[in-house]
Amino acid sequence: MSTYKQIIYTTTPDPAINPSLTNGTFSIKTVPKPTNVPADQLLVRTHYLSLDPAMRQWLTAKRSYIAPVELGAVMRGQGIAQIITVGADLTSKFTPGDWVVAYSGWQEYAVLGAKEVEKVVLPPGGRPTDAMSVLGMTGLTAYFGMTEVGFPKAGETVVVSGAAGATGMVAGQIAKIKGAKRVVGLAGSKDKCEFLVKELGFDVAINYKDADWKKQLKEATPEYIDVFFDNTGGEILDACLARAARDSRFVICGAISQYNSAKPQGPTSFMTVISQRVTMKGFIVFDYAKKYGTALQELASWLSQGKLKRKEHIVPGGIEGAPQALVDLYKGVNTGKMMVEVAPVSEAIKAKL
Amino acid sequence: MSTYKQIIYTTTPDPAINPSLTNGTFSIKTVPKPTNVPADQLLVRTHYLSLDPAMRQWLTAKRSYIAPVELGAVMRGQGIAQIITVGADLTSKFTPGDWVVAYSGWQEYAVLGAKEVEKVVLPPGGRPTDAMSVLGMTGLTAYFGMTEVGFPKAGETVVVSGAAGATGMVAGQIAKIKGAKRVVGLAGSKDKCEFLVKELGFDVAINYKDADWKKQLKEATPEYIDVFFDNTGGEILDACLARAARDSRFVICGAISQYNSAKPQGPTSFMTVISQRVTMKGFIVFDYAKKYGTALQELASWLSQGKLKRKEHIVPGGIEGAPQALVDLYKGVNTGKMMVEVAPVSEAIKAKL
Repeated sequence: MSTYKQIIYTTTPDPAINPSLTNGTFSIKTVPKPTNVPADQLLVRTHYLSLDPAMRQWLTAKRSYIAPVELGAVMRGQGIAQIITVGADLTSKFTPGDWVVAYSGWQEYAVLGAKEVEKVVLPPGGRPTDAMSVLGMTGLTAYFGMTEVGFPKAGETVVVSGAAGATGMVAGQIAKIKGAKRVVGLAGSKDKCEFLVKELGFDVAINYKDADWKKQLKEATPEYIDVFFDNTGGEILDACLARAARDSRFVICGAISQYNSAKPQGPTSFMTVISQRVTMKGFIVFDYAKKYGTALQELASWLSQGKLKRKEHIVPGGIEGAPQALVDLYKGVNTGKMMVEVAPVSEAIKAKL
Repeated sequence: MSTYKQIIYTTTPDPAINPSLTNGTFSIKTVPKPTNVPADQLLVRTHYLSLDPAMRQWLTAKRSYIAPVELGAVMRGQGIAQIITVGADLTSKFTPGDWVVAYSGWQEYAVLGAKEVEKVVLPPGGRPTDAMSVLGMTGLTAYFGMTEVGFPKAGETVVVSGAAGATGMVAGQIAKIKGAKRVVGLAGSKDKCEFLVKELGFDVAINYKDADWKKQLKEATPEYIDVFFDNTGGEILDACLARAARDSRFVICGAISQYNSAKPQGPTSFMTVISQRVTMKGFIVFDYAKKYGTALQELASWLSQGKLKRKEHIVPGGIEGAPQALVDLYKGVNTGKMMVEVAPVSEAIKAKL
């Protein structure tokens, strides 16, 4: 009998995720592959899994924007999958071989309803993995956070933290497209900083691991910060608050530096919120679902025109690598969208990746 | 030769204000009373001085919304004063005996230009001191913070910290006027809490010095908090963030609990900002100057109709008491607007106070 692997959420992290599959946060389970697919369902095979900073929050039983993953369940996650078998009632809509994006979870195969999947529609020059990054949740998060919450105006200074991450790199590029005078990225290595400036057109990139990064930040923001797109929280948020311009907008997208702390740190330069009339606003991309269509069109057009560049960090070796990849995401090993290759794709597809 | 007293800012607080006039933050100075008033100036005598939480910030040489007071200068502050002498060019506009409100500083007399004073215009039932509280900066701060930043909608839950303070008590009453379903006040004593509920119509008031105040806050906000009007910051802001409703507005008006700390504490339940899409917005009342007129009309009409109640805490004994009154303000000894009586007023005026 044919089987496939699932990664099960097994032990609550306390507070850090332990990537071991024998005595860690997750465990591996082998289950039989379904032989019959119900008429209203699809059997899909996952090729790429998305690793997202928000995942750590999904493992915490706190009031949040989404219910936590239950212990014993397959780990939640988005994937790019190919349809293997189409249920009898769905043959007019789907064909084996179609690429879909879905919250199919950390498993090699999944049986899903038609509403649970979204067909991947690629623009000229697009790749299937784009549907999970620049033309997927990551790109949309950057898009709405920047255009609706931060809305940089011509001539303004924009700072992005986690700038070499999947969302940050798109956010910074959108700021530039929208006419920001100066886009400054904060990232965790010299290579990432070089990439941001040389490949993506950031005006300045600062390695927050440099001893004098705060001084560099000050020098890079002579007219203070009008828009701060924050993916990291903690000390970086604090330093940027201290540089907030009057009437600035602080887009609170994520706080990756704090997700694994038992006692998260809030901003201490909080008084600036009053004196500079700062608006700090948290947001969740799901709230903008009605506008996804137009946003994706705009992102795709920027991508086709070369105004927007993307980058992926793909971890090969199968689904077993997902827990370690997640830990590595919090360590910031990736430049660009972090994914796990669950199943290799054909050479023809690979050529496009 | 006739003289008068000034309170001079002498030593930077480190970090707390020392109220001693011999070796503290301020010192006293006796200066000659002007005998000639220039043609374009007014000589005024201060009767009441306003004590405001923001004053501590004015003593810190940090980037803020207003320049710090310089060492050696008369302490900045707003007062209610009566005109004694009118310069020759101003006799068509002012008459000795007129009441004015002005940033005349901590001194018994001041010589001011016409643009530096604002004549007190009282509605039916108004008192001169109202011009410095419910119909002055305090009332305006509550008004704009609540109506423009918090904007509670009918049926919503509003929480106000520092609710027995001059701004807080007006803010809570405005929330009720604007149709909030439930207005909860946080204050520092049983008496203050009773006052808020019995006199001002708050639905619930919680003494944050009670051991179980967080539990009380949770019980008082079964549908979470839609608008939080914050005057205190610190632990109270944190506890309210943990109770933030989706799409809630956190009006950051002040952070009195933090002004005297060497290392201010920011919110640690900051993750809720993202998960509940909280908007935290700092504001300064001065930004709404163009709308003061209509705001004062509305406040005056609520006051006349008895919808809005005010309360003052007047410290008698002259200007020497100002430093101690300021320290007491941070300790929360006052219910309502804290003022120092610099010079007694006539019995006829007193009857209206």
